[in-house]
Amino acid sequence: MTLVDNFNIVTFKVIKCKAAVAWESSKPLVIEEIEVAPPQANEVRIKIVATSLCHSDLYFLYESLDKSLFPTILGHEGAGIVESVGLGVTEFQPGDKVIPLFLLQCGECRFCKSPKTNRCEEAMKRHAQKSTEHSRLTCKGQKLQQFMGTGTFSEYTVMNQMAVVKIDPAAPLDKVCLLGCGVCTGYGAAVNTAKVEPGSTCAVFGLGAVGLAAVMGCKAAGAKRIIAVDINPDKFEKAKVFGATDFVNPKDHNKPISQVLMEMTGGGVDYSLECIGNVECMRSALESCVAGWGVSVIVGWTDLHDVATRPINLMLGRTWTGCLFGGFKGKGGIPRMVKAYLDKKVMLDEFITHNMTVDQVNDAIELLKNGKSIRTVMRFSPQ
Amino acid sequence: MTLVDNFNIVTFKVIKCKAAVAWESSKPLVIEEIEVAPPQANEVRIKIVATSLCHSDLYFLYESLDKSLFPTILGHEGAGIVESVGLGVTEFQPGDKVIPLFLLQCGECRFCKSPKTNRCEEAMKRHAQKSTEHSRLTCKGQKLQQFMGTGTFSEYTVMNQMAVVKIDPAAPLDKVCLLGCGVCTGYGAAVNTAKVEPGSTCAVFGLGAVGLAAVMGCKAAGAKRIIAVDINPDKFEKAKVFGATDFVNPKDHNKPISQVLMEMTGGGVDYSLECIGNVECMRSALESCVAGWGVSVIVGWTDLHDVATRPINLMLGRTWTGCLFGGFKGKGGIPRMVKAYLDKKVMLDEFITHNMTVDQVNDAIELLKNGKSIRTVMRFSPQ
Ligand SMILES: NC(=O)c1ccc[n+]([C@@H]2O[C@H](COP(=O)([O-])OP(=O)(O)OC[C@H]3O[C@@H](n4cnc5c(N)ncnc54)[C@H](O)[C@@H]3O)[C@@H](O)[C@H]2O)c1
Ligand SMILES: NC(=O)c1ccc[n+]([C@@H]2O[C@H](COP(=O)([O-])OP(=O)(O)OC[C@H]3O[C@@H](n4cnc5c(N)ncnc54)[C@H](O)[C@@H]3O)[C@@H](O)[C@H]2O)c1
Ligand SMILES: [Zn+2]
Ligand SMILES: [Zn+2]
Ligand SMILES: [Zn+2]
Ligand SMILES: [Zn+2]
Repeated sequence: MTLVDNFNIVTFKVIKCKAAVAWESSKPLVIEEIEVAPPQANEVRIKIVATSLCHSDLYFLYESLDKSLFPTILGHEGAGIVESVGLGVTEFQPGDKVIPLFLLQCGECRFCKSPKTNRCEEAMKRHAQKSTEHSRLTCKGQKLQQFMGTGTFSEYTVMNQMAVVKIDPAAPLDKVCLLGCGVCTGYGAAVNTAKVEPGSTCAVFGLGAVGLAAVMGCKAAGAKRIIAVDINPDKFEKAKVFGATDFVNPKDHNKPISQVLMEMTGGGVDYSLECIGNVECMRSALESCVAGWGVSVIVGWTDLHDVATRPINLMLGRTWTGCLFGGFKGKGGIPRMVKAYLDKKVMLDEFITHNMTVDQVNDAIELLKNGKSIRTVMRFSPQ
Repeated sequence: MTLVDNFNIVTFKVIKCKAAVAWESSKPLVIEEIEVAPPQANEVRIKIVATSLCHSDLYFLYESLDKSLFPTILGHEGAGIVESVGLGVTEFQPGDKVIPLFLLQCGECRFCKSPKTNRCEEAMKRHAQKSTEHSRLTCKGQKLQQFMGTGTFSEYTVMNQMAVVKIDPAAPLDKVCLLGCGVCTGYGAAVNTAKVEPGSTCAVFGLGAVGLAAVMGCKAAGAKRIIAVDINPDKFEKAKVFGATDFVNPKDHNKPISQVLMEMTGGGVDYSLECIGNVECMRSALESCVAGWGVSVIVGWTDLHDVATRPINLMLGRTWTGCLFGGFKGKGGIPRMVKAYLDKKVMLDEFITHNMTVDQVNDAIELLKNGKSIRTVMRFSPQ
């Protein structure tokens, strides 16, 4: 029986399935049976085959201040197969392999039409609305929210077709799920946002999947020297695999890390990428750049504090910017990255340190929290 | 008698001349007779014909914390005529019309060789040295420092040839002196640093000479809409002359100015330029930009406080940068701007609200401090 056979009978019925529910902030997730309503107009119901865990899920679970966002289904790095489609959906049909997009694209607004950004007016509008409005997921009579609009820790999820992209049927879902967030985020930050130039010197702060993907992006763009910075030296070996040439543990130095990098490079790096989510590290990353043309990209996420520097650090010609999802427009960018993976031009397997089922999601969380994993890929059913 | 005749006899003697000396922080300048030693190897002695007053002179006089930098000769927007040259100077000869550069260019370092920046390694080295080391100016037996390496409030000054640029003999010195700082700074910030695109919407914060020149730069680059922001509404009329289309006085609003601009523009401006020197205004300028592609340039000077924002404001795709001297390399940039003025492609006369002699420098300071002038041009001898 092929996968497609599974979906021959389009049900348009409520599906009961397994999901990991985050009932409250800072509590373990609970595996529950939930109900997933049929897709409405312009919506797609997706069977999630594999999902990984990103630091942003942890951030939301442990540090987000807005407690009204629970109960929710976490997970935004997923890949799956279309199970059924609602009225008006022409781009997808049951059996299509897809990746859910946490940054949707209406395709119509001035942002979608500009090559300069992956922002979308429609996405902004939806973020402003209460997120249960679009959710088709319920558990014990309660509407569940979908974190980042995706909620991939549920075996089935329903999303607007603006937030789904079709990928090559040859793509292994338990690998390309990483393209749903972390790998595109880091890689794109280097190639799309920083626009790293051949021969340049780069520094990547933080060596989780996002930072390692940034290292890979710098390498792909032709950087000559890639300095990998992390307080967890266990990460250095992996960073080397992705192309890092130098390794700095801030704990080994008793001067500011920006000064260490300035000295190592005779004036500062051409590009720096902050992939941690710490405002002090964001400042260091900027100040590690060479005055004159250094570009620093904020990739790590935090919304608890301001980020700051002395104005002179910018006036000397440094540039400070940032991006979501590596500046990729998901609908075009993800298929390109899937192809690059299939063509062996980008690595994915090397990010995966653990494979589990979603039942073990709390173990996956502990591993990531304690710096013991890069990416744990979870399936809903054992292979 | 032509100007050149004046310089036929190269003296190589100490010159006694008039200068406005800043003996102490926050005190009126004192007109003194000073001694200017002959130029040493690679130096040029310049007779300053006209000089204007920039806000950076005021900042240094009133707000700079490093009191060891006095006594000094302020002034860095000047134009003059070469009086004599030291050994090894080949680029200049007596009689040449020149503008002193506060950002010198060695022409040899990796920055000078890059089109990306006007920074220079040699300039950095000199900034790190005690500035009396290179000064040939003394008064009452005391070495005088030259503010920003120039010190144009002295009838004669001596500078390294790296810090001097020759200009078209047809240029009126009492106009093109403005190209020594303020006008190039604002204009270049728009065209070189922000790289304003045709059809775009810009906001300029602060409408002194620097801000007005930024307005002129936005216009020249083809901006469709230029929003001029100042708490002194007397500046709006002038801003219109330079091309501003909308006028906002923050005092007329009781919401943050970034919100006002967001509403006026349906999402934010494409480019903003801070020409005030206030970290709160720098933040507003950034946050007034449209998420996705907005670029904000810090032009105003302050080193007393950090500038800050929430990381999300950058992650949404805004870019924060800054520049000194509008990103122009003085040696190439100033002659181009002189030509543009002579070709009536940039305005200079319109910036000049007052003409005086240097004896009246304290009046000029009061006018600028109180927002009553844009630029006061001072000559050493009445015309
Ligand atoms: N911009 C986006 O669209 C986007 C998308 C995904 C993730 N993120 C963010 O990117 C960041 C990284 O995500 P991840 O999944 O790779 O996380 P991760 O937890 O796997 O990796 C973070 C790394 O940073 C290191 N680190 C922590 N503090 C440090 C310090 N002070 N100095 C140096 N290194 C330090 C850790 O040791 C770890 O290796 C998170 O903030 C996440 O929320 C942003
Ligand atoms: N980056 C550089 O290379 C460079 C070069 C020259 C000057 N500067 C700096 O540029 C700035 C402007 O110089 P200038 O000579 O045009 O000064 P200026 O004093 O003539 O103009 C400043 C303007 O800002 C306005 N302003 C003050 N506070 C404001 C507020 N809160 N909101 C809105 N407007 C406000 C004032 O009313 C005034 O019109 C100064 O900080 C100066 O030091 C920088
Ligand atoms: Zn993520
Ligand atoms: Zn859109
Ligand atoms: Zn100035
Ligand atoms: Zn140089």
